[in-house]
Amino acid sequence: MSDFPDLYAFVLQLYPLERDVTLRAQGHGAQALFLDLVRQVDPVTSERLHADAASKPYTVALLPGRRRDRVELRVSLLQSELFQTFVHALLRQMPGEAPLRLGQASLQLGDVIGTPAPKGHPWAGYSAFSELAMRAEATHTLQLEFATPTAIGQGSRPDGRQRLGILPDPALVFPSLARRWNELAPASVQLDAAAVREAAGDTLITRYHSESAEINLGKGPQKGFVGMVSYELPLDPSQARLIALLSDAALFLGVGMKTTRGMGLCRRRI
Amino acid sequence: MSDFPDLYAFVLQLYPLERDVTLRAQGHGAQALFLDLVRQVDPVTSERLHADAASKPYTVALLPGRRRDRVELRVSLLQSELFQTFVHALLRQMPGEAPLRLGQASLQLGDVIGTPAPKGHPWAGYSAFSELAMRAEATHTLQLEFATPTAIGQGSRPDGRQRLGILPDPALVFPSLARRWNELAPASVQLDAAAVREAAGDTLITRYHSESAEINLGKGPQKGFVGMVSYELPLDPSQARLIALLSDAALFLGVGMKTTRGMGLCRRRI
Repeated sequence: MSDFPDLYAFVLQLYPLERDVTLRAQGHGAQALFLDLVRQVDPVTSERLHADAASKPYTVALLPGRRRDRVELRVSLLQSELFQTFVHALLRQMPGEAPLRLGQASLQLGDVIGTPAPKGHPWAGYSAFSELAMRAEATHTLQLEFATPTAIGQGSRPDGRQRLGILPDPALVFPSLARRWNELAPASVQLDAAAVREAAGDTLITRYHSESAEINLGKGPQKGFVGMVSYELPLDPSQARLIALLSDAALFLGVGMKTTRGMGLCRRRI
Repeated sequence: MSDFPDLYAFVLQLYPLERDVTLRAQGHGAQALFLDLVRQVDPVTSERLHADAASKPYTVALLPGRRRDRVELRVSLLQSELFQTFVHALLRQMPGEAPLRLGQASLQLGDVIGTPAPKGHPWAGYSAFSELAMRAEATHTLQLEFATPTAIGQGSRPDGRQRLGILPDPALVFPSLARRWNELAPASVQLDAAAVREAAGDTLITRYHSESAEINLGKGPQKGFVGMVSYELPLDPSQARLIALLSDAALFLGVGMKTTRGMGLCRRRI
């Protein structure tokens, strides 16, 4: 197992070049901005990231926030190869470069934060699949923050209407995280899906607030939920470790659908 | 089928006799007040209502509200026999009677409201199991308000810890309502549990806000959720009718556990 980071979470601070521009949290706009950034240095990678892969090795979201003069773009990279391309792209964004676009707004890149709070940013950090797997600790309870609209696909109804999980049900959240983990993590740290389902089934919600929320994805609004949820983990230490591991990984992986377009931004609260 | 009402929901307005008394929403206190009221005219019935029946034919809750000078006690009766006893008990509460007690507070009975809004009260009304069954209409969406902490028992974990459903999951809410309906409704309008499960499984949440909440039941706090939830019903009209029927019945039946002690107060919003 290598401890070299293959999981990165960056926060890019962006400043509008015009005054009085409305910066709305458009999921597709955030993705376009990220892909543009990569395209400037590596059109092939940008194209690959845009293509419909089974599980895309990155997430992009605008952080919720109320400042009028700044937006924060959160990007996570889930393959070490992407790191070099991305950092190269960021270096290219120094003064003189064409501005980035988010919807109608032109933006200038400010600080890029890659270290976690308290020194850095609560939505930034780096780790490795193998490191997360090694360090996960059984605990009694933990709390997840679902910061942008989150929805977990559950197939469709008999009438063809998509069934969306928009409750923070542990039986949905953790198996969904495990699927994504297994799609991207190295073979040495793959998780047993049945064991995750069982552990998730014995995870209880002890406190929460949650509500439905919508995000604009260009083709119309997409439903999800935002909220804060405290889970009580199973007593069995190996089950609790599984849930803790997936909760730690949520910062990088995101939860559920369309995590490349602003949805499913999630992190474990300390 | 008789259309004579066997479902009643009353709102009793109660005024503290002392100033500056704190009226906290204690579930067990509300139940004690109701049973005291009944005991004054019919000790045998009061004892029967207090005993551990499989499904008690009444619910009691304090309505949430912020007025310091009044509390509203909501009582629903689910057997026509109880109506006479209860009305008799209310009539006895006219001036001169010993005050009612809610925790440390002495209260005087004011108005008793038995008719629904707009003339009466949104938490009052009367109907019959057979009438609800006859009148239920298939609809596309409907909204439920969960006004006091609501929890649906789901057995226990391997460690013996009780598994509480505290999410407004349609797959929990509607089968729970159907169980209670079948325990209390006449044979002619019994519901098929499998059909309810299937209809509930095809019911989606479209909008909601929900959060965990606690109620004091004397032996310590009990967890539940409160919130407002919009459900999208199945396209199949008979399935949609089932969900609509159970939603209409929620006003009388309550939802989930300990509906005789303040929990599970729920109604369909028009």
